[in-house]
Formats: sequence, C-alpha cells, structure tokens
Amino acid sequence: MTSFREDGYAAVDWAARYLEEVGDHPVLAQVSPGELSSKLPASAPEEGEPFANVLRDMDELIVPSLTHWQSPRFFAYFAVTASEPGILAELLAAATNQVALHWRASPASTELELRVVDWVRQLLGLPDGWHGHIEDTASTSTLAAIIAARHITGRNVVVCSEHAHSSVEKAARMLGMELRKQPTVELAMTTDGSFDDVACVVATVGTTSFASVDPVRALAAKAHDAGAWLHVDAAYAGSAWICEEERWSQDGVELADSLVVNPHKWLMLPMDCSLLWTSRPEDFRTAFSLVPEYLRTPEDVYALSEYGPALGRRFRALKLWAVLRCYGAEELRAVQREHIRLAGAFADLVEQSPDWELVAPQRLSLVVFRKNASDEENEEVVERANRSGEIFLSHTKLDGRYCIRLAVGNARTTEADVRRAWEVLNR
Amino acid sequence: MTSFREDGYAAVDWAARYLEEVGDHPVLAQVSPGELSSKLPASAPEEGEPFANVLRDMDELIVPSLTHWQSPRFFAYFAVTASEPGILAELLAAATNQVALHWRASPASTELELRVVDWVRQLLGLPDGWHGHIEDTASTSTLAAIIAARHITGRNVVVCSEHAHSSVEKAARMLGMELRKQPTVELAMTTDGSFDDVACVVATVGTTSFASVDPVRALAAKAHDAGAWLHVDAAYAGSAWICEEERWSQDGVELADSLVVNPHKWLMLPMDCSLLWTSRPEDFRTAFSLVPEYLRTPEDVYALSEYGPALGRRFRALKLWAVLRCYGAEELRAVQREHIRLAGAFADLVEQSPDWELVAPQRLSLVVFRKNASDEENEEVVERANRSGEIFLSHTKLDGRYCIRLAVGNARTTEADVRRAWEVLNR
Repeated sequence: MTSFREDGYAAVDWAARYLEEVGDHPVLAQVSPGELSSKLPASAPEEGEPFANVLRDMDELIVPSLTHWQSPRFFAYFAVTASEPGILAELLAAATNQVALHWRASPASTELELRVVDWVRQLLGLPDGWHGHIEDTASTSTLAAIIAARHITGRNVVVCSEHAHSSVEKAARMLGMELRKQPTVELAMTTDGSFDDVACVVATVGTTSFASVDPVRALAAKAHDAGAWLHVDAAYAGSAWICEEERWSQDGVELADSLVVNPHKWLMLPMDCSLLWTSRPEDFRTAFSLVPEYLRTPEDVYALSEYGPALGRRFRALKLWAVLRCYGAEELRAVQREHIRLAGAFADLVEQSPDWELVAPQRLSLVVFRKNASDEENEEVVERANRSGEIFLSHTKLDGRYCIRLAVGNARTTEADVRRAWEVLNR
Repeated sequence: MTSFREDGYAAVDWAARYLEEVGDHPVLAQVSPGELSSKLPASAPEEGEPFANVLRDMDELIVPSLTHWQSPRFFAYFAVTASEPGILAELLAAATNQVALHWRASPASTELELRVVDWVRQLLGLPDGWHGHIEDTASTSTLAAIIAARHITGRNVVVCSEHAHSSVEKAARMLGMELRKQPTVELAMTTDGSFDDVACVVATVGTTSFASVDPVRALAAKAHDAGAWLHVDAAYAGSAWICEEERWSQDGVELADSLVVNPHKWLMLPMDCSLLWTSRPEDFRTAFSLVPEYLRTPEDVYALSEYGPALGRRFRALKLWAVLRCYGAEELRAVQREHIRLAGAFADLVEQSPDWELVAPQRLSLVVFRKNASDEENEEVVERANRSGEIFLSHTKLDGRYCIRLAVGNARTTEADVRRAWEVLNR
C-alpha cells in the first residue's frame, strides 16, 4: 500500500470531482439488474492491490450503477444532501474508529453525541430536558420506541394512521405485535376506551406519501388517557422546525413520549443519522439497559447503548457537529426555505396547467400531483422521465389513484432544475 | 465554506497524523465524566464556521476524550483495526451518499454488497449458496436472526449457553421472548424434546469472555430435530476462518440456519460492518419483506432491506471491497496469524510466571488470565494499568472469579507492545 496521505488526497480528489460532475450523470442508474455483478470478479484477490485500483473501478464499474442521490435533479422518495463537512467528518469518524460501547470506550463520542443532539433539540424548539441520542435510521428509532412502549405498558398493540411509514408495520411484525392501521379521520375521532389495550400510538408529522400531518395533540391526549405511549415520526418534516414558520406542524409534539427526526433527510447529513428523543429516558433505560460483567466499568456513568438496540455505536455525532458548525443554523434555514420555495414554484406550474392537477396541497418541499389521465399513463410518464436519466421521481397512491411525487432536498437544486423536471414530464 | 478539496486534504492530513501518532496518546481517555461536555458550547452556532475550526477542535477538545481504539496497546474487549483503505472507502461512501432502499435506489450498493459478502463467504469456507448481507453490528444481526426464527417457527423461546453475548439476552427482551440461558455442558447434553418449544438456539463460536466454542454440530442436530432454528454467533472468531488452521472451530457451522461474523472486529474494517448469512434466504425474506406502494419499482428484483430490520441502508459494501482488495486474502491472514502469535507470546509470559495463571487456554488472539491474588487485587491491577494510559485492558468473570482479558487485534501491535503490557501489569 502506498502512503495514506497520497491515497487520501486521491480519494478527496475523486470525491470532489464526483460532486462537481454529479449533475452530469443520468440521475437514475441506466443499468439492468445483474449488469454490475457480471463485471465483478467472482472471488477476492489473494494479493493486495493499490488503492488507486479502487478509485479507477469507482469510475469504471461503480458510478454507472449509482443512482445519484447527490444529483440536483434527484426528486424521488425524500431527496437528500450529504454536505461537504458531513462527508469529511465521516472520514474522521472512520480514522478514530470509536466503538462507543459505553462512556469509557469513548467519552468523546458519548458526550459529543449528547451535546450536539441537544443543539438540534434547541434548534427545533423541543422541550427542555428531553433525552436524545443517535440511531442509524428511522426504522430503528421507531422500533426502539415501540419496544420501550411495550416494555413499559405490558401491552401488545400498535396503532397508526393509514399513511404511517412502512417501518411502523415492519416494527410491529418484527416484535410480534398487533398493528391497527386506521384512516386518519377515524383515528382522530377515536373515542375514549379504544386505546385501552394499546402499547404505542404512532403519529406521523409529514407522511412519506404526501407530507400530511396527523392530529398529534388529540392523539397524545387520547393515548395518555388510555395509558398508551405516543411516538411521533417526524423523520422528514421535523428538520423543518428549525424554521419558526414551519412549527405549525409541531403542535402537540411536546406531549410525545418519543420522537424521531432524521438529519440525514433534511439537515445536510450523509446517511446515517436518525435522532431519537424521549421525554421518558428512565423508561427507555429500563427497556434497553443490560450490562454484562465484561462491560462493567468503575465509572458510574451511563452508556448510550442503554437507550437503544445496538451495543457497538459508531461516532456519528462528529458529522452532526461538523455540519451544524460549518453551516450554522441560519444557513441551514436558508437551504430549507429555498427548497420549499422551489417546490412552490413547481406546484405553481402544475396548478397553472390544464393538463395536470395537484393531488394534495404542497407541504414543505414535497409536491404530489398527477396528469389528468389514466393511472397507466401517469405511470408511463414517470417511467419515461426516469429512464431519460434527466430527472428521477417516485410515486405513491392516494385514494387508490397513482400520484407522482416531486421532493426537493438537494442543496445543488436550482429553479432551472425544477423547470427542467416540468419540461421532461411534459415532453 | 472553503473548497472541498482544500478542507479534504486537511482532513486527510489530520487523519494521517492521528494514525502516525496514535501510539503516543494515553490509550484510555484520561478524562472524567463531564469534562468534555463542560468545554462544548451550549448551543449550535447561528453563523457558519470554517471546517478548519472543526479540525482544530478535534485536537483540542476531542482527542483528549478519545479512548484510542487504533492504538497498538489497546487490548480491551476485542481489539480492532480500522485500516487505511477502509477509512478512505467511508469517505467515498459518504460522498456518493447511497440510500439503498431497494435495487433501483442503488444498483451498485445492492450488487456490490452481494458480491463482496460472497467473497468473504468463500474466504471463510462457508457453504455455497448461502445468502449474505451487511448489518451494522452483531446485535442487529442476531436480533434479525431471532426475528426470522420466531416468524418461521411461531415459537417464543430463545436458548443460548451461559457465555453467549449479552446481545442475545437483549434481543430476547426486546422481542418479548423467553430466554433460557444454560451452562454449556448442560446445553450439550440436552436430551431430545427439550427444544420442542424453542424458536432459536444461539450457539457461540468465540465467546466474548474467553473465546470458548459451543458444540455447534450437536446443537444444530438437536435444534433441527426439534424444529428450531440454529443461529451461530461467530462475530469475533469467524473472521479467523480465513486461515485454514483455524477452521477447527467451524465444525457444524455448515448446518446453521444463520451466522453472524463481524469484519469490523478482525478483518481491518472500520465500524460498522456485520455480516449476516443464512441458508434459508426465503424464510428471511418472508419475515422481513414489506413493500409499500411508494417503494414499488418496475424491476422484479429484490432489495436487501427485505432481509433485515432497516429500510435505508448505507453503502457499507465499499469499505469491505476496498479492504479485501488492498490487503488481499494473504495479507489479511498474515495479520491474524501475527495477532495469534503475539497473544501466544503473552500467554507464555503468564504461564512462565509463578505470580500469574492462565484461566483458560489461549484461543485465537485472546488471553484470559489473573494474578494469584484476590479478585480485588486483580481489579486494582487492571485499573492501575488502565489509568496509566500505557495499555488498556478489560475483564470478565469466570466461575465467579475476576479475570483479566488481553485481546490482540490492532494491526500496529508489535511484540514490544505485548511485552510492555506485561511490564505494566507487573509494575
């Protein structure tokens, strides 16, 4: 192996060039299943190769099979950005290779994590005293919340609204719990008593399908009246609470027992960084704490592994720290406001066209719309657009109808990109 | 923000210097709980700062609060190495920011992951046809295996031996399952019928306490006779199967329904990379697959998220690919053989001294020993050594007695480091 410095500069150059040129690639990988596999050797090499070979193969083999989440014209799912300070912080995290089993194994990781997650708590306007830590994804955060809820309540039912994320249903299935998925309207009108056997009510702020917001305050009251736990999934929308004008969707969240918000969705962090807060830290600790002899330490201080499923925890706090510092809160707000403005510009184009309609009001940076045509034609429009490589969109179904989703979330996206999406769809 | 290239070179320089000097730092952080917290600002900045400030604070604030897992004299838990190609691959993974929800969202991540995990399968001599994917840690891999076992068997009991990792007990608790933890001897003598209500038997190859090996072949036969699932936890020891002479501990593993091996433990990978194989991929998929409308794609190809708890998956395959290629299998074997040799050298010192005794035979790169003195005195020896900053050790209890563990696993560790550990302990 050549020197780490030399290989490292080459890796930085590769990443810099990738980010400079990412808008030139087809957004959706233009490959067929198995195409990359067929080019990869069947077995690992016996002899080592220079790192330069890896970088060469990044260009020749890997890039053509990437779907470019960093592209300014990535509008699918929830569009995201891995910002420069976040990327470099991942290098630092890997170099220091902290495995934060408990405080002693990494005081820096433990204390920095508690502090920077608390920075975000303040930026979002969440209650004082909430305990927050980092999980990998919202799937894990929601799973952990439901585990805590069952542990504390001794009940076995999870309730959520019809547009809750699939991770809620998956968690219930993994845990062997009963899931009751109800239309939001029915859920809001739930009468006293119907949550009496419920461990956890999951309310969503910013659903994946169309960024709708469940009536959190009402659900919290009903859940707590019945002795159930209220978990709020604001994985996407919660980041927007850094902007005061977006806190309308936070109504009632202060009553939550737990809350998940993903900075890797809309706070410029690379995958993975999911924040899980709880107003009941001791209940979480009761559910998750398990300290075998080989992990006992003389210090009477806690471990963040006592608040979630994993024991070994990597140093994710570094990237959150780096991004919050290098952007600063004002710039993060500016990025989000621009995304919301761009989504608004696109929604205007839809509204002004007789051939298209908005299916739901624009919320945050998401526009849900469809062509005045059959489901099949809408699907064909999306697939043609995606195959063109010029833009990448995804879809959902609302009231049984196929709808197109355009989510703005990349820091490189400009108004020209949004207009181009409109042109491609109308071509 | 200054240019990504400039900041990136500075980050590489920081990491290079850190790795060059890591042996000069006290191995265990010499700070008290709260010491770092007291130096961190209470809130995030409103205005952005240059990335150089982050690097400055890495030196001034973070490094003194790190426990140096990259140090050649880190001998605690299972010692690990984040190698250079692995570190740089994390930079590339963050830059491309793949979120591999399914094949379409990242064909490269999906296909590279399948291929390189299969490379490792071959290197370890595991059966053809096993399906492998990457989870974050062994806690998650074992949790996933037990979930699959319960889903398939419809039963609610987990069985493991007394020295199984705490993650087994934690998984059972999280899932609301009954745990039966038995002495290994009793478990081995389990008679027909006693697994009749068992969902999952967890056998450990290389226990955390003293690297002991459960009788996998016998347990597999008994588990399968009773219709139970056999999961093998070889998180640490499994990596050693790349060396033919260490495959004695693999006996019976070919009968497993699932198996976890962690390359971030002993294959030079940065946290996190846990490999989860199964001989029953369709059963895994039945347990975990859940595809909501917004994730349906036209391609009839599967998603690795259908084989485990998380939906969003980061591009961990890149670092596995980079490390396997840049080391090559032969060099990885050489590193492990040297670690085992160094552990042997330390075990010899223990055996030759009248003041110390080996508590268990040396297995792989782990030595478990104690001073011929009271538990309290042994504990004091360890704590004095750790507080010196010269070495970092951890402990366990066997048959109720306090035992010291010395685990060799860092690529920088030399015979001089192991001899220094011996001197520090005897000071």
